[in-house]
Amino acid sequence: MTSSEKEGTVTEAPAEPNFTVWSRERARHFEWVAERMMPQPGGVPKRLIGAMRYSVLGGGKRIRPILCYAAGEVTGASATVLDRAALALEMIHSYSLVHDDMPSMDNDTLRRGRPTCHVQYGEALAMLAGDALQAEAFTVISSPEVPGMIAARLTHILARAAGVWGMCGGQALDLGMVGQHPDIPALSQMQAMKTGAMITASVLMGAQAGAWEAIGDGAKAGLARYGEALGVAFQVVDDILDCTQDSVTLGKTAGKDEKDDKPTWVSLLTLEGARKRARELEEEAIEALRLVTADPGAVPGCDRRLAEIARYVINRTH
Amino acid sequence: MTSSEKEGTVTEAPAEPNFTVWSRERARHFEWVAERMMPQPGGVPKRLIGAMRYSVLGGGKRIRPILCYAAGEVTGASATVLDRAALALEMIHSYSLVHDDMPSMDNDTLRRGRPTCHVQYGEALAMLAGDALQAEAFTVISSPEVPGMIAARLTHILARAAGVWGMCGGQALDLGMVGQHPDIPALSQMQAMKTGAMITASVLMGAQAGAWEAIGDGAKAGLARYGEALGVAFQVVDDILDCTQDSVTLGKTAGKDEKDDKPTWVSLLTLEGARKRARELEEEAIEALRLVTADPGAVPGCDRRLAEIARYVINRTH
Repeated sequence: MTSSEKEGTVTEAPAEPNFTVWSRERARHFEWVAERMMPQPGGVPKRLIGAMRYSVLGGGKRIRPILCYAAGEVTGASATVLDRAALALEMIHSYSLVHDDMPSMDNDTLRRGRPTCHVQYGEALAMLAGDALQAEAFTVISSPEVPGMIAARLTHILARAAGVWGMCGGQALDLGMVGQHPDIPALSQMQAMKTGAMITASVLMGAQAGAWEAIGDGAKAGLARYGEALGVAFQVVDDILDCTQDSVTLGKTAGKDEKDDKPTWVSLLTLEGARKRARELEEEAIEALRLVTADPGAVPGCDRRLAEIARYVINRTH
Repeated sequence: MTSSEKEGTVTEAPAEPNFTVWSRERARHFEWVAERMMPQPGGVPKRLIGAMRYSVLGGGKRIRPILCYAAGEVTGASATVLDRAALALEMIHSYSLVHDDMPSMDNDTLRRGRPTCHVQYGEALAMLAGDALQAEAFTVISSPEVPGMIAARLTHILARAAGVWGMCGGQALDLGMVGQHPDIPALSQMQAMKTGAMITASVLMGAQAGAWEAIGDGAKAGLARYGEALGVAFQVVDDILDCTQDSVTLGKTAGKDEKDDKPTWVSLLTLEGARKRARELEEEAIEALRLVTADPGAVPGCDRRLAEIARYVINRTH
């Protein structure tokens, strides 16, 4: 007999925290994981480790880790594997920002409210820090703590999303578009690769960190479709914010797209059109999650956080 | 009854090709593999794919792939897995050359007798091509064609050798040494990371692509020790060649180390001292292979190509 029965009361499961509480807790947990699993300060080579930590531990919205944790709920993924997948995703994202900010690319000096990595550490070390972060991402997900089969599939998803068919490929298309006037299909393809691939990878890595075999093809396709819709939404909202918010709110240089004559969803659809598109994408993401919850192999209620993230991404202000 | 028995003759196994023939055949096979497995020309994004292919398919000694194939003989590794491991190693090596040649690093304009990647494609695309090559390396070794357990361990070896504890870390130490006067331990540590880690990884990836469990700890340690000795030897010989050969023979700008006031084995040991050290390292490498051949789980005669490679590395002229 438990003490609560002795007292004649019924112990209820603690209420699930609301999204703000949950996502803050996940972000805090992620900071703790990253702080511990990143190369430690004082190690050799000291300045390279400093630049790597500066780039990853400097804040940020942690959207990709949070998505990865949320998607892990679909297949009951283990915390150990999810932590590593989340860190790997954020390392790839962080390295891409470091390289993207460099003079030969976007030549940006402000990021997350602080000097960009190359301003702080010099160009040579910033390039190396980016390179080392990419390698470190694959080190953490292939560690012996991750079962071999899972490590292999997480590596494959991440590598494809980061490379020529994903993020790097999208950046190359983006470079070719400056001063051009691409149409909507061209802009969509570029962004699906540049941003969308890593967002979709965050969802798929979270889900594949667990019992991926237990869910059917419909649920798997639903997760991919959710990630794709969210990826586009993320970029549409970024473009809206770039032309409606100031640099202090964004923590980066605002209005740069227009100044650089870069095509955006706002320049193609107007501000109101872009807002409408963001709302449609939110609907598409929620719709895709119905394919997941319909699957008997999915953990009941597993879509809750993913749905909340979709709503958050569309309604965020920075 | 076979036709040879009918003729009253004995069919002998064909003689094993000598090292020159074998290594040329392996290099040619590698070119064929790389040509087929790299992103194909005409794909999108066209210029990025062009820059990636330019960087990998532009020749080079293919030492890492050849080492990987040779080490695969120790554990009877499959051709499919070895091809992917060899390509991944060369992609990482090639990306490091692309980034290393850039203006913020070594600012080199000539490589393998041709303009460096950033001279040919511009700095932004060269940086992206390097980034995409690193991702592609992990894509090819984690593909479904590679058994999951093997993919996971190959990824882990490669990622550690490429990152902060290996190649990138060594490059960061190297950056910090320009204009300094490091002693022999400091130079050794830098080079063990910058060059040695990837040479050792080439050997370990080849051996771990096969029946790694079938060999004992002594043989495993022997392979690592062989790789480490070879890695140092490689760098010592590079330094000797840099100050004794011209740019045409090397296919890259000669005499740069001295001009850049970079510490080298020649500046620390004198030319004769460096040559003596190279011969000692050859002996150490051959000695380490005895630990491998003493193992009953190792394929008989499996050390032949590894020993020949050690002799080639020490005696090469470019």
